[in-house]
Amino acid sequence: MTTPDTPPAANPAANPAASDWWRSAIIEMRPGMIRFRGYAIEELIGRVSFAQMVWLMTRGELPSEAQARLLEAALVAAVDHGPQAPSIAIARMAATCGVGLNNAMASALNVLGDVHGGAGEQAVAMYGAIAARIDGGMPQAAAVAGGLDEAIERYGKFVPGFGHRFHPVDPRAPRLLALVDEAARDGVVSGRFAAMVRALEDELAARKKGRRIPLNIDGATAVIHAELGFPAPLARGLFCLSRSVGILAHAWEQTQQGGRNKGPLPRDLLWTYDGPAARPVPGA
Amino acid sequence: MTTPDTPPAANPAANPAASDWWRSAIIEMRPGMIRFRGYAIEELIGRVSFAQMVWLMTRGELPSEAQARLLEAALVAAVDHGPQAPSIAIARMAATCGVGLNNAMASALNVLGDVHGGAGEQAVAMYGAIAARIDGGMPQAAAVAGGLDEAIERYGKFVPGFGHRFHPVDPRAPRLLALVDEAARDGVVSGRFAAMVRALEDELAARKKGRRIPLNIDGATAVIHAELGFPAPLARGLFCLSRSVGILAHAWEQTQQGGRNKGPLPRDLLWTYDGPAARPVPGA
Amino acid sequence: MTTPDTPPAANPAANPAASDWWRSAIIEMRPGMIRFRGYAIEELIGRVSFAQMVWLMTRGELPSEAQARLLEAALVAAVDHGPQAPSIAIARMAATCGVGLNNAMASALNVLGDVHGGAGEQAVAMYGAIAARIDGGMPQAAAVAGGLDEAIERYGKFVPGFGHRFHPVDPRAPRLLALVDEAARDGVVSGRFAAMVRALEDELAARKKGRRIPLNIDGATAVIHAELGFPAPLARGLFCLSRSVGILAHAWEQTQQGGRNKGPLPRDLLWTYDGPAARPVPGA
Amino acid sequence: MTTPDTPPAANPAANPAASDWWRSAIIEMRPGMIRFRGYAIEELIGRVSFAQMVWLMTRGELPSEAQARLLEAALVAAVDHGPQAPSIAIARMAATCGVGLNNAMASALNVLGDVHGGAGEQAVAMYGAIAARIDGGMPQAAAVAGGLDEAIERYGKFVPGFGHRFHPVDPRAPRLLALVDEAARDGVVSGRFAAMVRALEDELAARKKGRRIPLNIDGATAVIHAELGFPAPLARGLFCLSRSVGILAHAWEQTQQGGRNKGPLPRDLLWTYDGPAARPVPGA
Repeated sequence: MTTPDTPPAANPAANPAASDWWRSAIIEMRPGMIRFRGYAIEELIGRVSFAQMVWLMTRGELPSEAQARLLEAALVAAVDHGPQAPSIAIARMAATCGVGLNNAMASALNVLGDVHGGAGEQAVAMYGAIAARIDGGMPQAAAVAGGLDEAIERYGKFVPGFGHRFHPVDPRAPRLLALVDEAARDGVVSGRFAAMVRALEDELAARKKGRRIPLNIDGATAVIHAELGFPAPLARGLFCLSRSVGILAHAWEQTQQGGRNKGPLPRDLLWTYDGPAARPVPGA
Repeated sequence: MTTPDTPPAANPAANPAASDWWRSAIIEMRPGMIRFRGYAIEELIGRVSFAQMVWLMTRGELPSEAQARLLEAALVAAVDHGPQAPSIAIARMAATCGVGLNNAMASALNVLGDVHGGAGEQAVAMYGAIAARIDGGMPQAAAVAGGLDEAIERYGKFVPGFGHRFHPVDPRAPRLLALVDEAARDGVVSGRFAAMVRALEDELAARKKGRRIPLNIDGATAVIHAELGFPAPLARGLFCLSRSVGILAHAWEQTQQGGRNKGPLPRDLLWTYDGPAARPVPGA
Repeated sequence: MTTPDTPPAANPAANPAASDWWRSAIIEMRPGMIRFRGYAIEELIGRVSFAQMVWLMTRGELPSEAQARLLEAALVAAVDHGPQAPSIAIARMAATCGVGLNNAMASALNVLGDVHGGAGEQAVAMYGAIAARIDGGMPQAAAVAGGLDEAIERYGKFVPGFGHRFHPVDPRAPRLLALVDEAARDGVVSGRFAAMVRALEDELAARKKGRRIPLNIDGATAVIHAELGFPAPLARGLFCLSRSVGILAHAWEQTQQGGRNKGPLPRDLLWTYDGPAARPVPGA
Repeated sequence: MTTPDTPPAANPAANPAASDWWRSAIIEMRPGMIRFRGYAIEELIGRVSFAQMVWLMTRGELPSEAQARLLEAALVAAVDHGPQAPSIAIARMAATCGVGLNNAMASALNVLGDVHGGAGEQAVAMYGAIAARIDGGMPQAAAVAGGLDEAIERYGKFVPGFGHRFHPVDPRAPRLLALVDEAARDGVVSGRFAAMVRALEDELAARKKGRRIPLNIDGATAVIHAELGFPAPLARGLFCLSRSVGILAHAWEQTQQGGRNKGPLPRDLLWTYDGPAARPVPGA
């Protein structure tokens, strides 16, 4: 590799230990060459979709087009939920503070934690635990009930993937489930997790005297992620990629609208103060 | 909207001023309804690609499939440049510090600033300035030379979009330019910016006594962004969406490899200290 | 308050619900007036130390000067551990990417998570659990042993607060413990946690056949935080305030040294690639 | 250094090039030894104040106690401005999203950009430019007028350091200026910048027909930073250290209050939608 044609770079022999400190199976590079998981980037460009690229980079292999389309549906579905979502509000406020779009995006992305963006990951984990029980021989009904018990114990009344404080029925969930059903009919996925969430919805309703707590966006994208074999933590990363689109769009829109140091409420409002009454500093 | 069927939500009449504080043309929401730029989310899911969704959310309209494929090529091309890129290194180190994937992604995304991720934005701006001159009547050669002068004055020797400290020829650029040529032949784009960067390369080479400083990934994706009409700052946001894929992949891989509090260099190395010699604290 | 002299602001009567959405006991504000926990800011400035201010803002009351000095010692002790610490490395790399100092600081601060900055919080929690047992009647030796068992089960072999992969003896710990001893002698704190960590060190050594695993910076600052009554999660916040100083100093120094897009290793190094061999993209 | 007593670490001879990649005058480390700018950490702990430590780490030398107290006043003054400041709002919202305190702090700190936290840096730069003119022989009045002209041209109507959209008189500024006056009387600082801002206030008032636009927190802390010789960008870093205290306090308070995914406005509010009317997706 160190030939007269190559620039003075990339000579692992010079520092064996240091060249071994970072190790990756994702990208190989030489001057003039970039390969992702073995595929030359110039061959991937214009031939694979963004969703196929996401899969290749995170999982190591190229998915079929049908698998990629299902992942893509999940990526499209979760892009935004409006300026009352903390991530979106943060993106918009940050955009008025004189930082770059990348910074506004970062501040927002950063809060997709256990409560704001983690429900998808938690749902995938819950589905996986139920599936493991079924694979171990437990009947589906018992496995579903047990999984629900575990989730309620762990997360409280907000079972990840179900219910929504704003939408009686989350408009994104039925459509995503229908796409999974199609993919299952085509043999692209097994459909086991689509069946599972329907059983979970029934079980939840039974426990709430018939009041249905329908699948929400996190539960629905989690079905797709589970059907496609994405590990639970990686599902959170995929949600982040998706939500980044809305984060970018809102940050960009806010820069176009203007505003400086925009706080959460209109300027004529403050907050409720419930601290100590005025008192003097000792010695002042 | 406040009917017996809807939950107690979304009543702008209650707080007119506060409901007007945040304003968006991106998303409309009612309980059970989410529309993006007028399109119901359940109709978009499974019908539009991720790239079409990115375009719709940031620009306001759905692009044609051909336009979206060109954008998608740019999104695929820039996903990663390996663990020696600061953004990727940061993602990997963060992943060993006991934070969530969303946090590792955010710390990394945050540094795609003027020097690390801003070259695409700067290139789009440069192309736009040259185009404005040409549209105002200046011959292309003069407009190109003038744009180059301006860029060198503003950015120094690193003209955004050209040259690469690692790749003699950036393997991503010719492929992207070829896709633009195809799209121009099909009438999807004008091709004016592809022509412009070829002229810029020639002009740069002429100034360096024939030594070519070829188009790099930032300059090539900038051609696509400019051809498709994306404003310069938004181009940086698109680069962020793309690079987020590599950031996620590397953060995820690092969590699988393990490691705790992984620093930039192997453990047996420190840094060069060039500060004051040992001295006592007064009074110690 | 809405008098002719005040600008049109701060009129909670206009939007009662919205003014009640954010509630704080920390700060009260009117045009021309800012009070923190009841104290006018202009009386605090120049009369209270930074450490007293940190305490007032987070705990609600002004500490004595002696209490504040002990907190200050902990804040001084943890400011930095050099460019091989991920937080510091990230700050330095970020500073070469064309972002503001605030952004470099944020990317770095963000990774003070469970593994990189959480040990202090975990140690405070461990001390608190042991103290609760002792207060419930358990003899110290049993409580200490039980607390250690719990910690080992929860965190593995890295008991928070003890041992250091670089320092045989962390030079910061004995000095901090000595200050706690002084403060205990002066009646400023009880000294119960200083006694506790000595017992923990003895117990750890007994389990490792006499090989001492000494208190480290996290364990030592945790003693101070526990003695002063700071809850465990807040202890992580205090560590963040402290480490922010080193983060700022290193980011600033790096901007003065220069560098562009500085990666973790010298330029002539890459990483070890252990992924698939070169393969063609289907259809390319 | 590689003696039988030291662990296998810190052997620069093994990798000279890699050990030279990161260079710092801030911290020197060997197993068992940590020195900051030459001072052993165990000697600094309990002997220097937090403000002295901030100075030492960023500037390289220990300041006098009087210098440190003036810096400390500035650090105390800027800690917080309530939940309507974007940085504080972001900290509070983030704290309801299931991320760590360090993450909530980072998202907030990140937005102290040119508009939200940069005014202090801009004011220091403005003062420095005026001082340079005076040192070059220009009379103060002309230098002040010229500096004001430059600032108005660069920043628009918001001259950094003057005026406040909420406070007719910022309660923090007169007190800080009084402390500078004291310090000047004691010979700790020259007082030239205190005189300068009074001249700037007079000049601004003259231009606004006698309507005073008083010094604000950014302008006042900038006087202190300039008097003490801190470069302008570092002044932004100091503001970040200060504001981090309020950021931490509010994030912590919010975790104690509870709340999940708290958006900027009360739940019964949305935002104003001003985008396209409902329309069908082609092909749906």
